[in-house]
This record gives sequence, C-alpha cells and structure tokens, in this order.
Amino acid sequence: MSEIRIDTPADAAAEPSHDQDDRLTPEFVRAVIDHVERGEADAARALVAPLHPADIAVLFELAPSESRRPLAAALADLLGGDVLAEMNDWVREELMEALAPHEVAEIATQLDTDDAVAIIEDMGEDEQRAVLRAMEPDDRAAIEEALSYPEESAGRLMQRDLIAVPEHWAVGDVLDYLRRNEDLTTDFWEIFVVDAGHHPVGTCKLSWILRTPRNIAVSDVMQREQTLIPVDMDQEEVALRFQKYGLISAAVVDPNGRLVGMITVDDIVHIIQEEAGEDILRLSGAGDGDINEPVLDSYRSRVRWLIANLGTALVASTIIGLFEGTIARMVALATLMPIVAGVGGNAGTQTMAVTVRAIATNKLTQANTVRSIMREIRIALLNGSTIAAVIGSGVALVFGNGALGAVIAAAMMTNILVAGLAGVLVPVTLDRMDVDPAVSSSVFVTMVTDSMGFLAFLGLATLAGLAG
Amino acid sequence: MSEIRIDTPADAAAEPSHDQDDRLTPEFVRAVIDHVERGEADAARALVAPLHPADIAVLFELAPSESRRPLAAALADLLGGDVLAEMNDWVREELMEALAPHEVAEIATQLDTDDAVAIIEDMGEDEQRAVLRAMEPDDRAAIEEALSYPEESAGRLMQRDLIAVPEHWAVGDVLDYLRRNEDLTTDFWEIFVVDAGHHPVGTCKLSWILRTPRNIAVSDVMQREQTLIPVDMDQEEVALRFQKYGLISAAVVDPNGRLVGMITVDDIVHIIQEEAGEDILRLSGAGDGDINEPVLDSYRSRVRWLIANLGTALVASTIIGLFEGTIARMVALATLMPIVAGVGGNAGTQTMAVTVRAIATNKLTQANTVRSIMREIRIALLNGSTIAAVIGSGVALVFGNGALGAVIAAAMMTNILVAGLAGVLVPVTLDRMDVDPAVSSSVFVTMVTDSMGFLAFLGLATLAGLAG
Repeated sequence: MSEIRIDTPADAAAEPSHDQDDRLTPEFVRAVIDHVERGEADAARALVAPLHPADIAVLFELAPSESRRPLAAALADLLGGDVLAEMNDWVREELMEALAPHEVAEIATQLDTDDAVAIIEDMGEDEQRAVLRAMEPDDRAAIEEALSYPEESAGRLMQRDLIAVPEHWAVGDVLDYLRRNEDLTTDFWEIFVVDAGHHPVGTCKLSWILRTPRNIAVSDVMQREQTLIPVDMDQEEVALRFQKYGLISAAVVDPNGRLVGMITVDDIVHIIQEEAGEDILRLSGAGDGDINEPVLDSYRSRVRWLIANLGTALVASTIIGLFEGTIARMVALATLMPIVAGVGGNAGTQTMAVTVRAIATNKLTQANTVRSIMREIRIALLNGSTIAAVIGSGVALVFGNGALGAVIAAAMMTNILVAGLAGVLVPVTLDRMDVDPAVSSSVFVTMVTDSMGFLAFLGLATLAGLAG
Repeated sequence: MSEIRIDTPADAAAEPSHDQDDRLTPEFVRAVIDHVERGEADAARALVAPLHPADIAVLFELAPSESRRPLAAALADLLGGDVLAEMNDWVREELMEALAPHEVAEIATQLDTDDAVAIIEDMGEDEQRAVLRAMEPDDRAAIEEALSYPEESAGRLMQRDLIAVPEHWAVGDVLDYLRRNEDLTTDFWEIFVVDAGHHPVGTCKLSWILRTPRNIAVSDVMQREQTLIPVDMDQEEVALRFQKYGLISAAVVDPNGRLVGMITVDDIVHIIQEEAGEDILRLSGAGDGDINEPVLDSYRSRVRWLIANLGTALVASTIIGLFEGTIARMVALATLMPIVAGVGGNAGTQTMAVTVRAIATNKLTQANTVRSIMREIRIALLNGSTIAAVIGSGVALVFGNGALGAVIAAAMMTNILVAGLAGVLVPVTLDRMDVDPAVSSSVFVTMVTDSMGFLAFLGLATLAGLAG
C-alpha cells in the first residue's frame, strides 16, 4: 500500500522525501538542514522545490526551532503565502517576527483574504499597523474589514472573491461572463445568484451550469434552499453547518442579508480538525497548545489546571483527614482507598468524554438530556455491579475479611454511580451556563469522584465498625 | 445573530423547528411525536416535510428509542436514502431491523455507492445477503465490490459515478459529453483525465473548464500533480491527505494504478469529525460509543477499561502496602499521598493528550520526537517547581513540619517529571508498535503516575525518617 503523488522529477532522487504514511522522513529533514548549515542554499532549495506547499510548511515545523530562520533565509523564494497559510500558528509567528513589515505585506497580498487575515491577525498591534500601511489600499481595506469581525468568526474565514450573478441571467450569460473576465477568481465550486439588492436567492453547482443548455435561466437551475452564514457566526457553528448539510461552499451575509463573502469547505476541514482536537486538549487540561507551542505558553496554560487540580485534591485530602482515627486503627484502608477513587474517576471520565462530544456535535440537546442521564445510570449500574463484585470478592479473599469486601464493593458501586451522574450533569450544566464544557468539566468531575470515593469507602468502613 | 435558512413556507408555522444554534427544539420534537402517538400521521408529516434530510435524521436521533419505529411508519415516504445516510449508525440499525430486505434494497438503490455501503455494511451476514439478492444486478455488483474492500478503507468510501475523459479531448468535447449524457452524475467538482489504460494523468477543476475556450485541450488546463488514493488506504489516512492538500475530490486507484472511483470532501468531513472525536473517547476509555450506542454495548466497551484501571490501581495499592508501617506511625501521610498521585496523573494526561493529537495529525514524527521529549521535560520542570513550591510550603505551614513539606515537594517534583516523560514516551512507543496510542495510553500513564506518586512520597517519607 503506497500513495502515489506525481511530483516533479527531483522527487525521484536517491533520498525519498516521504515515508509510506506521507510524512517527511527524518533523513530528508536532516539532509535539508545539513545543507543549510553548511551554507549550501542551492542544494537545500533543490531538495525542497519539488515539495507541495503543505509539505514545505511541515518541513519548518519538523526543523528544530534554531534552524528555522536560517532555513527561511535559504528557502526565501519557496516561502510563499501558500506555505505560510498551511504552517502551524506558532511556527509561523516565529518566522514572521524575523521579517520586515513590507515583506509580510508582500506575502499577504498574494493570498486570499482569509489566509492573509490568518497570518496578520496574530501579530502585535504595532506590527499589524505597519504591515497594513505597506499594502495596496484595496488589499488593506479588505483585510481591515475582515479584522473588524470577531476572532474565529465567519467574517475572518470568508473570502471576498466569489462569483455572484443576477437572477435574470441565462446559463449562457454566466458562461460568457466567466470566460471574458480574466481577473475573476478560479477558486469557486458554486456560483451565487443574487437579487437587485445583492441578497442571495439561490446557489448553482458548477456541474449544473456545465450540463444545462445556454438559453435556460439560472433561476431555473439554481437551488433555492440554501444555508446562509451570518458574518458574525462562530467558526465552530459554521463547521457544524457545513458538516450537517454537506456543503462545499456557502454564502456569507451581513446583518441586512446582503452577500458579503463566501466560505469554502477546504477552510472548514481545518476548523473541524482543530475544534475536535481542541476538545481533547481542553478536556485534559492542556489548553489549546500543540507540540509547537512555546514552552512558557504551555507552562502558563497547563499550570493553571494543575493548581485547580491541586485544589480538588486538597478537598479530597480534607475528607480523608476526617477519618484519620479510622485509618490509624486499620491501615489497610489507606492501601485500598485510592482504588475506589481512581476507578470512579475513570468511570466519570468515560461518561464525560461521551457527553462533551455529544454537546460539541449538537447531538445532546434539551430534547434528550433526561434520556441520556437515564442511559448513563443504567450503564453505571452494570459497570458498578461488575467492578464491585470483582473488587469486593477479591478483597474479602485476600484480607480474609468479608465485611471489608462488602464495604469496598458498596463504596465502589456508589462512586461509579455518582461518577456516571457527574459525567453527564457537569458538562450539561456548564453548557447551559454558556461555559465550554470541554474546558472545565474535568476538574469538577474529578473532585466529585475523588471526594465521593474516599467519603464512601472510609465512611462506610467507619459505620461498619471495621476499625473497631 | 441568527442563521437564515430559506425553507418552504411551512417552516414559518407557529412552532419554530430550530433554536438559534440550528438544533431542533424539544417542543418541535415533542409535537411531532405527540402527533404520531395520537395517530395523526398527516399532521406529523406536515411538520417534518419542510425539514432538510439531515434534520429528519436528527429528529429520529432525538426521539426516544420506543418512538422511533412508529415515527418511521408515519413518515415512511420522507424516510429516503439521504435521511438514512445522515443518521447515526446505532439509530439507523435499529430502524433497518424493522424493514424487510426488499425495502432496504429499494432505499439502497437510490443512493451513491458509498452511502448504500454505509447502510448495508453493519447488517448481519444473512440480512446482507437477502438485501443484495433483492437488488438489481448492477447495483448489487457495485456494492459487493465495495464490500470486498476492508472496513474503513477508501474502497468503501468511494463512489463509482465520476467523470473521466481521455487526455486527447478538448474542453469543447467535455462540454458536449456532459450536456449530451443525461444519466451522468451531477455530483462532481472536478473531472479526471485518464490515459488509454484508464490511469489518471490529471485533474480539472470545473471552474477551469468553465473559463477555458472550447478548442483548448484538457491536457493543457489540467493539473498534473495530483494526490491519488490507493483503494485499500485507511479512511483516517485519506482524511489527512484531503486536509493536508486542501482537496475537494480525489481519484481512487487500484493496485495497478487504474482509476476505480472518486472520494469527495463532503464524505471526508464526517470522517475527520469522527476520527478526532474517536480519539477523545478512546483516550477516556469510552470505546467508540456515542450517546446513541445501546447500553449493553457501552457497558462492554467501558467495563474492559475499568477492569484494566482496577488492575493499575491494585499495583498502586500494592506499593502503598509496602509502607503500611510508615503510615501506621504517621497517618497524615495517608491524607496527603493522593495529592501527589492525583496532580501527577493530571500532568501526565495533559502531556499525553498533546502527544496523541500530534501523532494523529502526523505532526510528531521521528524527526522531532527527541525535541518533543526535551520540550515536555522543560514544561514539567516549570510545572513541577511551581506545584512543589505551593504544596511544600502549604504542608510545612499547616502541619508545622518542614521536613514533611520538603518530602511532599520533592515527591511532587519527581512525579510531575515522570508524568511528563510517560505522557510522551507511552504514546510514542505504542505508535511505533503500531498500536493506536489513543486506545491504551491512559492505562499505562495512570499506572506510572499513581505508582510513582505513592512510591516517591511514602518512600521519601520513610527515608527521611518522618514517621520515626
């Protein structure tokens, strides 16, 4: 099994650039960097030139941080906007800091508005202003307008180059218009039909235009039912619409319903990947960081959650403290108590992950919340019985103490049930409060399962007079 | 902020069907089910008819399990293949079980091969054979061929309806061919140019065809550099290619390099969402389940991980057992030890999530593994120092015991460092062994951080003679 990419001949050189998973090989990356370090810029360029822009971006990501600027200097003419648009945010920022404003401006003008905005939006205000000043007035206006929309909104994602035609045109008029106007974009998959006020009234797939005789009116072939994206819609919502309705492109409209831009699915594919990935990272308390995030940024976002976690651990610790007398009389309880808390925590995490995903994909709504809670209770009863039976009988046998076995079984059952409830209720409640459930569910769920694990086990042990 | 969908007039009825997040309202779902329960099928159909197929699919997902079959009976004529293709796998299976093979066959023949396969592939073998027997020979052959490829491979995802033209054609020939052959698909965004042996030699965006004069050869406008997808490639790899190269559609080739199908981005959008979501669920030990999975299936996949977790908790418990004498002499150690294990576990989960995502998106390769490990060590040193300082000084003050503070600080530092290492090394090692790191990293990382937390804290306390 191997992927075939038809590239320029240099790709067939001795050193294969890709492994069978389409990743750049470490040997290839090393070879390029070695050339750069030895000052052999031409040799480095010869290796890199055949690569797809997306792979050139990956090359920079894979290169050690200290090699990136020399690499950029050696490959300057290959480092176009298409490469930068594909590059990891952190790596790109690092490179952009080394460039003069007019160089950034030059790169930005080669790009679609959405890609140019992606490059410029992360810069400091002063640098941003310097770059904008260095641009042509038209480009600058387009980018300034995009920057006026909130971050991660449709307005930042959309491109302004699109094909819009009046509804009274025939298919032939569209064909002539497209053929005669050479400076129109070629980056479109559908054309938008608008009324006199520039409100979209329908969409035509290009395949329909191609298959329809010239004299038919576009209003007869267009699809009237369309998904319009308000310019201030959050990108995650936009991605959900694209997915739900299987869209290739969609018209973006201003608050007056006028067509102001277009979003295409290739931009959305990145968003879906990012947003789903963000949920894992947030759920794990790792912020939004990826492996290219600067160490200090990662530290700042992660240490906050570790401190929050320290807080919840202190709550659990305080609960254990209430039972010091019991533990002093029966040290085995200290040995066993982390099992109840740990397995409960795991059960809570399972439910929480399922719930957070369901909320993120709009599958868990008010219409089925109660049903989901009932479902988790039933799963928790099954899981709880199984685990309680295993650990209860095991402890009873190993410690030769049936009462201790019964106590740990009951505590485990209780904690898994509580974990199941917390795993649904915490994210659902956060979502109702308009807090992203992926961000802070873990802390609350862990606090509940830790505290309840120790409380149930040590409390039942005390009540049962085990440490009499 | 509200999305505008131009739907048929019934959508403007008293009861709004969608909330501002484009989710069906609980009131709407309730209203439809009430009509069905009261036997008012016409009223139910009137409410549902204006909905997009994707929303009809959601309606079934949101309806309680016991209402789904009556709902299907009432809405039979609205329950087309496009609705079923959008529906959650579990919900669809439930409905399909109620249908006769010839009904399933009839639905499947309305669909593109890829959607038909998605519906049929989950059925039992006997039912599958019965459905295939009820289909037209052509449709049956296409589906049987698709089913001959591995599950989740490109062969199952691809559709066979595509536009392929010989390389000697001019643009005008393509236009005539498309206009004259009415039974060609309209579901395409690019056309493929093939040589005499049906090997793809290039791709043409429709926008190029539209903008090029009739007499130009397609071989002059086509893009020769293209990403070809081998028919047995895993769908996750396919999704990565689409994302990396910004593809709208791609040619699928057999082992001889002949064009056998086409994959379009709208199918890939679902895969990306699914695969990224799967990683969260797997990392949390929740299997592949979503909120529609039957309770017994969820139980089976989750209980396995709880039992594995029980195993790792027993290891940790055994380590605590080694120090029973120390704990008996100083019960405060039992109170504090879960803090060291818990915060360490959290730090390990952070690193693990970042690493698993980086592996899944091909961003962590042999070229930057060492660098990633060094990066995590530096973050762990920062996190460890901060948390150790906070907990160490806190414990020293509260317990009035500087030695105890120093011991918990040293143990915390050690465990966070070990957690950072395990968080990278476990998933990277699993990946090298061709095991999905999302599936089993958690168990190993938790075992390491739990065991090391107790060992470091209780061991150092014993060495320091704290409980003397």
